[in-house]
Amino acid sequence: MTDLAAAEVLERLDRRGWTIATAESLTGGLVAAAIVSVPGASAAMRGGVVAYATDVKQSLLKVDADLLASAGAVDPAVAWQMAEGIRTLLGADVGVSTTGVAGPDPQDGKPVGTVHIAVVTPEGTGITSLEIPGSRDQIRAATVDRALALCLEEL
Amino acid sequence: MTDLAAAEVLERLDRRGWTIATAESLTGGLVAAAIVSVPGASAAMRGGVVAYATDVKQSLLKVDADLLASAGAVDPAVAWQMAEGIRTLLGADVGVSTTGVAGPDPQDGKPVGTVHIAVVTPEGTGITSLEIPGSRDQIRAATVDRALALCLEEL
Repeated sequence: MTDLAAAEVLERLDRRGWTIATAESLTGGLVAAAIVSVPGASAAMRGGVVAYATDVKQSLLKVDADLLASAGAVDPAVAWQMAEGIRTLLGADVGVSTTGVAGPDPQDGKPVGTVHIAVVTPEGTGITSLEIPGSRDQIRAATVDRALALCLEEL
Repeated sequence: MTDLAAAEVLERLDRRGWTIATAESLTGGLVAAAIVSVPGASAAMRGGVVAYATDVKQSLLKVDADLLASAGAVDPAVAWQMAEGIRTLLGADVGVSTTGVAGPDPQDGKPVGTVHIAVVTPEGTGITSLEIPGSRDQIRAATVDRALALCLEEL
């Protein structure tokens, strides 16, 4: 399912003539890897950043330091700024981002399974906030699927 | 096997008090994702860059433009500069990088399955060059395993 969704994302990007880039926290590169798994992905895929440490979200993706200090890294506005930031950093038309708590421990006071996903295109922004049950691997895999689904909604 | 190797990489990093960051081309985030799959990875994992487009290797990872123009993106020296570049960009002690041709088509005159991996630590550099048979997915998965194995050799 992940591969089919990624292929569909690339097909719609091709139709629009748009490129894409990823900014990932809890998924740690899995969204980028899903896109790259499709042969011919290089036509639209610029690349991405795995901003696992919170300060990387600030230094590389230009997420607002005050926001990170007040809301923590697991926040819908952080997801939105990550998606905007990766568009700027890599010169991509579309940015997709993930931030959340895969566990086993809560983070910044947010429970395990809290996930925020953002997709920014030249025509709009979509943000999804979820509470995903399951193990660390299940939470990460479900986040990838939901990120690709949000891309399809926005493309 | 991938998960066990990633856990062992993190354990050795912890023993040294070192952090790690990834710079990936053909693996598209899978090395980062393997490291992040281990609970507690945040103690050592800074993050990474998926430098899928060749110009991102230059702009973000500071790979030499002349080298990219003369050798192309699939080259052992490019892998080495990617690993050095991600250490600098994310302030990590250890950098691990992958570049190669996952197929289906050759790239820059290099056949499908050509892969170069580099690991740079404060104490040394390891570079592995491979010809990996199989499908796009098999080449990418084998590259992740070899990248983690090279980390273990250097740690």
